[in-house]
Amino acid sequence: MKFILSAIDVNEAVAKMGRLLSSKSIIPILAGVLVEATEDCLMLTASDGMESIIHRLMIDEVDGNAILTPGKCVFSKETFDIAKKLKGPITFEVVDTNVIVTQNKLSLEFTTMDANDYPKVNVESNSAPFVLSGPSFMEMVTLTTFAASKNDVRPILTAVNMTFNKDKSVIVATDSHRLSRVFIDGIKSENDEVSLSVPATILDQALKSFDLTKDVIILPSQNSIAFANGNTVLNSRLLEGNYPDTSRLIPTDFNTDLVVNRKELIDGLELLQAISSNSTINLKVDSMFVELSAKGTGTKGTKEIVFESYDGLEDFSISFSPLYLLDALKRITDTSVLLRFNGPMQPFVAVSTDSESKATQLILPVRQS
Amino acid sequence: MKFILSAIDVNEAVAKMGRLLSSKSIIPILAGVLVEATEDCLMLTASDGMESIIHRLMIDEVDGNAILTPGKCVFSKETFDIAKKLKGPITFEVVDTNVIVTQNKLSLEFTTMDANDYPKVNVESNSAPFVLSGPSFMEMVTLTTFAASKNDVRPILTAVNMTFNKDKSVIVATDSHRLSRVFIDGIKSENDEVSLSVPATILDQALKSFDLTKDVIILPSQNSIAFANGNTVLNSRLLEGNYPDTSRLIPTDFNTDLVVNRKELIDGLELLQAISSNSTINLKVDSMFVELSAKGTGTKGTKEIVFESYDGLEDFSISFSPLYLLDALKRITDTSVLLRFNGPMQPFVAVSTDSESKATQLILPVRQS
Repeated sequence: MKFILSAIDVNEAVAKMGRLLSSKSIIPILAGVLVEATEDCLMLTASDGMESIIHRLMIDEVDGNAILTPGKCVFSKETFDIAKKLKGPITFEVVDTNVIVTQNKLSLEFTTMDANDYPKVNVESNSAPFVLSGPSFMEMVTLTTFAASKNDVRPILTAVNMTFNKDKSVIVATDSHRLSRVFIDGIKSENDEVSLSVPATILDQALKSFDLTKDVIILPSQNSIAFANGNTVLNSRLLEGNYPDTSRLIPTDFNTDLVVNRKELIDGLELLQAISSNSTINLKVDSMFVELSAKGTGTKGTKEIVFESYDGLEDFSISFSPLYLLDALKRITDTSVLLRFNGPMQPFVAVSTDSESKATQLILPVRQS
Repeated sequence: MKFILSAIDVNEAVAKMGRLLSSKSIIPILAGVLVEATEDCLMLTASDGMESIIHRLMIDEVDGNAILTPGKCVFSKETFDIAKKLKGPITFEVVDTNVIVTQNKLSLEFTTMDANDYPKVNVESNSAPFVLSGPSFMEMVTLTTFAASKNDVRPILTAVNMTFNKDKSVIVATDSHRLSRVFIDGIKSENDEVSLSVPATILDQALKSFDLTKDVIILPSQNSIAFANGNTVLNSRLLEGNYPDTSRLIPTDFNTDLVVNRKELIDGLELLQAISSNSTINLKVDSMFVELSAKGTGTKGTKEIVFESYDGLEDFSISFSPLYLLDALKRITDTSVLLRFNGPMQPFVAVSTDSESKATQLILPVRQS
């Protein structure tokens, strides 16, 4: 195998492979990248065993790129890393078990691994695809993955649960302290409804790897899911087990509605978060103000915000983790935010005051000290 | 004590105090900042016990700043940190043992410490000062501190040795693997020659805290040294013990001179440094080229550079740590660099080809494998 590729194209491919290129795996060959050169295309595969990315580079002679001898081989990550320090065309030539990387008066040799030892990445699907626009995909991912669990105590909660349906798809993530739900419509499919638990990590990777001016095609199968976009395909195993039934967790009725300026609330929470020692903030409503307060070691603070409207319980007060509410507030794009409560010890929601919005953020309170 | 200070001024003062504000000390009160308010000026002192900074803020009513009640008190670092998240004027008022920080509807309380418990920072000098321009001070510091030792195996080597003299001052730093020496002239003083071992850390801090369009005044005393610049004074204990005699370490005669393009040499070293597993690079000179080479785990590489001139030993070859040569090359501003050798196992120097330059970088080779 011998090919010439510009440093820019190598670096773009490395960026697209992202986390999957540098992830540690117990299978040594997965530390490498499977490179397959045909007459007019170079296919790169990176995988951590659970998630994979396949990126196809069309070889266009206009760029000075060229495939001189087709073939396949597994290159080490370092083989590509070196391109970060280079400009212009780079020649890659496999000689025996090494790849020789040359440019001008520079010559580097890296050992390779056998392409036949690289695990097969299967992206076949046994059902019709779901197709959604790039912006819809981005909305679905940015509004949910942050709420998925970051630790493996309950592995299923590291997933985003996606129930696709051509009428109204619902995407949910929760770490059991907060929950984010978004409805997406406009998904094209010939498929019946399907419910999948997709690792949040592959969705975050997709946002980095994809060209979101183009559609995203979702191909579910028995144990895995593939996301295709342009020349890039991401593939992941699905998480096993039943995703908890979240449909009844979000209350439909509330007795207390509070509307405040979103930016002022964010600023107040961030200020007090910096001094809070137990990551808890108290929100209290009196006749004119919302009063936020926090205590730390040798410090305490309060911030008053004039509310836009309040309708509900008298002397209302609730404590919560500012981190969760901040995460939610930062994903609402409206000037104002509507917080809906059912008393001091009941879950509350943050929603956009824009009735078009399909996203709901649920947050559990903490016991008031 | 009560004063009003703009968030910008608080943040500027925090930036000037830099590392000294956040440094850990076994003396609890040093975690705080001594704040002294007189009628027209606010004086802030931060210290780690070894090094100190005193920064004076002249209170100008045009900025909206004001001192309402003079006094002194030790504030915690957190008291100032909060200003990072604020804009506009902030009111600081000491009430009993707390300081209350207010702005608009925000109110924060922080516990304080007693100003009488804060160690006295002594910046008196028993001899006439040395005065040098801001740019000369910057040159002296940037050309030497990087070569001082980063670890405490031989504490004296964490210092930069400064021999001030009104005719020709010499500034030296070494970590025993490399040495940097710079001659500075144009220092104004009525003083006799003095030789001081100044911690490299205080010099690096000075570069960050000082306004280098203004002169730097150096005030040496028995056990300490002060650097004054505008409204800022940095003070440090001197390191005890004799600094090694470095005057004979830099050879005066060389048998091999090599001139190469500095940028090409830097690029070549950085490329090969990335693949070298033992941080060693070999430099070999043949009839036309300088060949750099390195070996790593499962990889090796070579880079050829056309030299500009070579005069010396035939089949010359030397191995060294690329880190040390790169550090030196990056502090030379010339297009070309002159490397001067005395054989493969002797220390070599990197100097600017500009004869005006007063800096010499000495590097020890490593045994060739």
